[in-house]
Amino acid sequence: MKLAKVAGTVVSTISAPTFDEQRLLLCDFLSLDGEAVGGYVIAVDVVGAGVGETVLILDEGTGARQIMEMKVAPIRAVVVGIVDDVDA
Amino acid sequence: MKLAKVAGTVVSTISAPTFDEQRLLLCDFLSLDGEAVGGYVIAVDVVGAGVGETVLILDEGTGARQIMEMKVAPIRAVVVGIVDDVDA
Amino acid sequence: MKLAKVAGTVVSTISAPTFDEQRLLLCDFLSLDGEAVGGYVIAVDVVGAGVGETVLILDEGTGARQIMEMKVAPIRAVVVGIVDDVDA
Amino acid sequence: MKLAKVAGTVVSTISAPTFDEQRLLLCDFLSLDGEAVGGYVIAVDVVGAGVGETVLILDEGTGARQIMEMKVAPIRAVVVGIVDDVDA
Amino acid sequence: MKLAKVAGTVVSTISAPTFDEQRLLLCDFLSLDGEAVGGYVIAVDVVGAGVGETVLILDEGTGARQIMEMKVAPIRAVVVGIVDDVDA
Repeated sequence: MKLAKVAGTVVSTISAPTFDEQRLLLCDFLSLDGEAVGGYVIAVDVVGAGVGETVLILDEGTGARQIMEMKVAPIRAVVVGIVDDVDA
Repeated sequence: MKLAKVAGTVVSTISAPTFDEQRLLLCDFLSLDGEAVGGYVIAVDVVGAGVGETVLILDEGTGARQIMEMKVAPIRAVVVGIVDDVDA
Repeated sequence: MKLAKVAGTVVSTISAPTFDEQRLLLCDFLSLDGEAVGGYVIAVDVVGAGVGETVLILDEGTGARQIMEMKVAPIRAVVVGIVDDVDA
Repeated sequence: MKLAKVAGTVVSTISAPTFDEQRLLLCDFLSLDGEAVGGYVIAVDVVGAGVGETVLILDEGTGARQIMEMKVAPIRAVVVGIVDDVDA
Repeated sequence: MKLAKVAGTVVSTISAPTFDEQRLLLCDFLSLDGEAVGGYVIAVDVVGAGVGETVLILDEGTGARQIMEMKVAPIRAVVVGIVDDVDA
């Protein structure tokens, strides 16, 4: 998993019913110091994260489908948690 | 998923019947600001995207096969949606 | 697998029971010389590694679930071993 | 998938019967302009590509095994097509 | 697959019986010219490769488990062959 900060949302007509009720979050990857490192991912939100929050990103399809409790879903990245504390 | 802009198409004789009726799109990856970041992917089009449109790319084999509704398909990247709005 | 040094821990409310009893370690990737190379991963700890220790990181979902002995787990990276010696 | 140019071949004693009758091609990745971008992959050839030809590379294990029609094969990258035209 | 040169070995207490009898090799990735390109991987050795030899690395979990003939193994990278000749 990686740390990221929620930068915004994306609205897209997606050709899969899986996405119908899902928020898609734009997430900037962070260093351990909390600085943006220049990459991002668009992830499905399962924790209700808001813009500006630091989150944990899981970027693996099978695990993403499991956490969504869906066997069939064209998903790879998911916001799996809101980060409470980083002790590095 | 990542944002990308459709840059063109590729025509290739592919040794798998899966691809027979599929359009292959050349897609330049974009930053959240909509700028090309220097990478690309060749993705199967399932949404009818046109050159110049901003799209969502899913780059994971199992999810790609699911959205294509094929169990057997040598596919990894798919254009899963046309982006209507980015709010970052 | 890659070499990494445990830099700290992360506390996060994660929306999956899998993580309830797991320590999440911040791990800086190392070169073969033991120098930080500028990347990191957040990995589940299955060996009881401490901050400052050099560890082996496995970053693959299916293998991670197997070593955790869980069929369902949104996990990709795991600290699979503490490194005793590097002979390079 | 990615564009690549066949740069040569590799001969290796591989400890898996899967590879016994397979040609292994050294393929330099290309930009959309057809320039080498500095990376390469060693891919199994299923289309009879020759040195200097522009090809499509699929780099995903499950899809690679499917196109080889093998359930068991330690393969990740395959030359899936010879590129006839790039319109970018 | 990628070309790499065996740089050494790593000794680690790994929390999985899979690794009990396996040699772990430190492998520096090579360009097609045989130059180190600055990355490495720790791979399980199934061919008896020695330090300094040029090898083929397969970096995919399912294929790695297949070549090890294990269904359950936290493995991603394997040295699958010793390179006899590169013609690039």
